[in-house]
Amino acid sequence: MIGPRFLEDLSVGETNTTSGVLVRATDIIEFAKNYDPQPMHVDQGVTAGVSSGGLIASGWHTAALVMRLLVDSQVLGSTPLLGLGVEDLRWPKPVRPGDTISAVTEILSIRQSRSQQGYGIVRMRVKASNQQDEVVYGMTTSLWVPSRTR
Amino acid sequence: MIGPRFLEDLSVGETNTTSGVLVRATDIIEFAKNYDPQPMHVDQGVTAGVSSGGLIASGWHTAALVMRLLVDSQVLGSTPLLGLGVEDLRWPKPVRPGDTISAVTEILSIRQSRSQQGYGIVRMRVKASNQQDEVVYGMTTSLWVPSRTR
Repeated sequence: MIGPRFLEDLSVGETNTTSGVLVRATDIIEFAKNYDPQPMHVDQGVTAGVSSGGLIASGWHTAALVMRLLVDSQVLGSTPLLGLGVEDLRWPKPVRPGDTISAVTEILSIRQSRSQQGYGIVRMRVKASNQQDEVVYGMTTSLWVPSRTR
Repeated sequence: MIGPRFLEDLSVGETNTTSGVLVRATDIIEFAKNYDPQPMHVDQGVTAGVSSGGLIASGWHTAALVMRLLVDSQVLGSTPLLGLGVEDLRWPKPVRPGDTISAVTEILSIRQSRSQQGYGIVRMRVKASNQQDEVVYGMTTSLWVPSRTR
């Protein structure tokens, strides 16, 4: 059982690497049927236009898979990962069936909340890559983190 | 059968309203078990800390549900919604079981691609609200849109 990490336990520049997740065609299609049913995400036969080379994962599927990697890696221990927002989200390369995705996080800044004493906002850069070290996803998220002294 | 909309068919300031989607507790829990298995997203009994008031949807679930609304509303006709990235994503209020979410889009800017002739980049603001007109999600996305004359 891992304990919570508080604002005081975190440092700017701290990095963390998650495990990897294999993305199967069936996963891509299942997610897309529910949330993003466009040809390039649900049809293995698609080869023309935007997704030359066949099926690609919905960008929101990639975002969700990376969230799962972050949760499983317990980057803040048992402290919940509560995102307030995201800046600079990019999908520079598509995720394809058979890719294995893993993520690296880096804490960019830590500050006390101005509106609620005992809490702070941690900005964290998240970058996810495939098995060939090609970046497929990046974003900077602002997390709401409790202080040890509340 | 609706046809494609091209860069030339779009106007800055154009708005579009999607239909609504009811978010059930079972939907919230199912998504979260796969992608964001934190107590506030999977445990209906959670009342303390970050999610006072019980179960709340993963922010990535909200993002995925809004993507589905955008796909279904065919805001670009049959032209695929291919996102290059997102700026200013915010979750100002939680989504809870029983909420109905709908989205409004507005085209902020349209420009030709500098790197690939015959394509352009459309920046679109997306705002989603619940049944009480409280904004629960907002973001600005950059979409890759073909020109009619390629």
